[in-house]
Amino acid sequence: MAGAGRPRLVIVGAGFGGLWAARALRNEDLDVLVVDRENYHTFLPLLYQVAAAELGPTEIAYPVRSVFRGVENVDFRMAAVLDVDFDRKILTTPVEEIPYDYLILSLGSTSHFFGIEGAEEHAFPLRTMREAMPLRHHILSRFETAVQEQDEDERRRLLTFVVVGGGPTGVEYTGALAELVHGPLRQDFPRLSGDEPRIVLLEATDRLLPELPEKLGRYAGSRLERRGAEVETGAAVSSVGPDAVRLEDGRRIPTDTVVWTAGVWGAPEAGRWGLPLVRGGRVRVRESLQVPSRDEVFVVGDLAYVEDDEGSPVPQVAPAAIQEAEHAAEGVLRLMAGEKPEAFHFRDPGMLAVIGRSAGVARLRGLVFTGFVAWFLWLVVHIWKLIGFRNRILVLINWAWNYSSYERAVRLILPSGPTGERERTVRGEESEHPGDVPAGERSV
Amino acid sequence: MAGAGRPRLVIVGAGFGGLWAARALRNEDLDVLVVDRENYHTFLPLLYQVAAAELGPTEIAYPVRSVFRGVENVDFRMAAVLDVDFDRKILTTPVEEIPYDYLILSLGSTSHFFGIEGAEEHAFPLRTMREAMPLRHHILSRFETAVQEQDEDERRRLLTFVVVGGGPTGVEYTGALAELVHGPLRQDFPRLSGDEPRIVLLEATDRLLPELPEKLGRYAGSRLERRGAEVETGAAVSSVGPDAVRLEDGRRIPTDTVVWTAGVWGAPEAGRWGLPLVRGGRVRVRESLQVPSRDEVFVVGDLAYVEDDEGSPVPQVAPAAIQEAEHAAEGVLRLMAGEKPEAFHFRDPGMLAVIGRSAGVARLRGLVFTGFVAWFLWLVVHIWKLIGFRNRILVLINWAWNYSSYERAVRLILPSGPTGERERTVRGEESEHPGDVPAGERSV
Repeated sequence: MAGAGRPRLVIVGAGFGGLWAARALRNEDLDVLVVDRENYHTFLPLLYQVAAAELGPTEIAYPVRSVFRGVENVDFRMAAVLDVDFDRKILTTPVEEIPYDYLILSLGSTSHFFGIEGAEEHAFPLRTMREAMPLRHHILSRFETAVQEQDEDERRRLLTFVVVGGGPTGVEYTGALAELVHGPLRQDFPRLSGDEPRIVLLEATDRLLPELPEKLGRYAGSRLERRGAEVETGAAVSSVGPDAVRLEDGRRIPTDTVVWTAGVWGAPEAGRWGLPLVRGGRVRVRESLQVPSRDEVFVVGDLAYVEDDEGSPVPQVAPAAIQEAEHAAEGVLRLMAGEKPEAFHFRDPGMLAVIGRSAGVARLRGLVFTGFVAWFLWLVVHIWKLIGFRNRILVLINWAWNYSSYERAVRLILPSGPTGERERTVRGEESEHPGDVPAGERSV
Repeated sequence: MAGAGRPRLVIVGAGFGGLWAARALRNEDLDVLVVDRENYHTFLPLLYQVAAAELGPTEIAYPVRSVFRGVENVDFRMAAVLDVDFDRKILTTPVEEIPYDYLILSLGSTSHFFGIEGAEEHAFPLRTMREAMPLRHHILSRFETAVQEQDEDERRRLLTFVVVGGGPTGVEYTGALAELVHGPLRQDFPRLSGDEPRIVLLEATDRLLPELPEKLGRYAGSRLERRGAEVETGAAVSSVGPDAVRLEDGRRIPTDTVVWTAGVWGAPEAGRWGLPLVRGGRVRVRESLQVPSRDEVFVVGDLAYVEDDEGSPVPQVAPAAIQEAEHAAEGVLRLMAGEKPEAFHFRDPGMLAVIGRSAGVARLRGLVFTGFVAWFLWLVVHIWKLIGFRNRILVLINWAWNYSSYERAVRLILPSGPTGERERTVRGEESEHPGDVPAGERSV
């Protein structure tokens, strides 16, 4: 397996962090083994489009083995990592023990529900492919069920879609959902009068997109309203039930669909393996991204807590994961050379969010953009990233085609959608995926 | 719902039969309601390519509502039909009762296991989208598991794929699987030495493709062998177990993957609803495709038993379903006009099967073709059919792209694939789908 004498780096997680670390070390003089519970990398900034039936899963997910095909020193294992013995330097999977000389943990993050009653049970998270597909099927099924429903109140409830969280994911998903519901679905269901479907975006604080200048949050809100969504700021959720969501001000919104984009928490494995956690379930690492007491172990991406030069936490976005991954890869090479890894410095590339087709908001190098310019920037940035690996151009053309043709052949209800019964769509497995690295739903 | 005074035709099943019947009646003076358990039509002749990770589900499935968008007199319900009261002329779904004036049943067929021990439990059928996707994920997962397996015998077992049934589906799937396994997967898994994966096609009779001239069966067999598959005729299966398949001659082939393409049976609802069945679980209909005692009820497609002018059973293929559907639609119009439906006459369009890329066999108007010519005919025929409905050209380009680029981004293991555990991939729901009309895996 490992070449005789060559050190072995194991990377856990094939998200942005894991993949870019492996990429930075291709053809170097060490064996790299990437381990992920899934066999694919997910381009998470576009996940919300899968959940809104705009893109198919194959457009934003790539088999890890394809990415590294022909790269001699990078190998892959599809396996869940159950445990890490940091003293013996061994990972345990259900099938085997994997020894390492160096370790990069890029396990990402999961949804966080702030202990709100019923949220984990009844809301749909939107952080992994396994979550995006059931959500999409659930939404399409609500329409198929509503068209058979005689009771008007129940029909309205079925056609009310609530998105919780006014950050980039919530804003982007609300925009895409509004386009789906008021566009193709209105055409597909002429019997459902046009004003029945409701899309409600709930944000607990007083503004959307708190990471961006206030002006951009206001712009996003007004664009969403023009696209037929209701935007409520200062609307804190108190509980989520099977048939409604309740707000702290006492209001109750009857709905079958609550999409949860409000909270992020570091992958729970980190705590179980005894790594030191700080707020948000993230691992406190040294400036070099090494964990405090283990020189050979690095943490990158959403799971790592590290501060920028102003002392603010580095955001949990794809560009940060990529920068950290490349830095950790460099750190491994330094250790191999008997040197000391250097401190990581985050270069903030700005932030982008789109609000449906041809509108967006952006902050880039101190400048802010809105409308078509921001949307076009978003497109350029994502196209650039999508072609970061070879063959991505194929995927890109496919993507551009699907996106621009607006055909939404992806409106299939597959493969676990309800039939005539009013069961709830089966959810994806609860994620403890080492590979789900939902970094960067939004930024450049 | 139904226009005042206009008669209502209900069509159960959105396969080839159901869809073409509705299509033949668009803009006629009646209300047409298509009912299917799924919200999409599946282009079943290409289903095996989905199961071989050559195409994604969206390339061969289309939402029914999209097909009939803008057609004023055709509506759709996504629902399972639980029962039919032929006296009161009412269908029951889990949500509502649907009255009809005319009824076309196009419920298709399911797999038949001939009572072979363990087959239904352990073999993978390949007749619906819900079956194709888990099969694909299962096959890809075998490779991911094998690469972690130290025991050589177990690794060989994981990498042995057995296809039962030498008809068109079995031949086409074996060819596609051989290309997947000996092509992209060999590149993706360089550690699995090239000669380990085995693909075995078992046919109980002494020849492949019994529906076609013997020469074509021999040609298909030799092409499959050249592509790296083992072809065994006269090999009858006696039992299927969780870890092996047994043959009647006593041999045992250790395998984790048995694909069942050997038998077809009419949709079981027909018997439950009291319709008269003949062999193969098909409904005996009059020459006009009406059921014996109900003038207003037609049966079309795989579920209908009808004979051609020579007295042979009309084959259970897409072209037959389409011809019958159009004939039944005409029959409904005649009944509406107070006339008597005419007898159905099947026009045999020939038969095609492909063996991987750029090879095939064909019988057309008394002529037989093999090799590239047959493959090209197959391509032309399917392209022609794919653009039968509007917008299909978009899908076609996408399809041609994926097919020719050979990229197989569809090699994702989604969404219920195993992780590191050696669980068996979760199967699709057992099909009693009114809409699964697996007519015509093959023919023109």
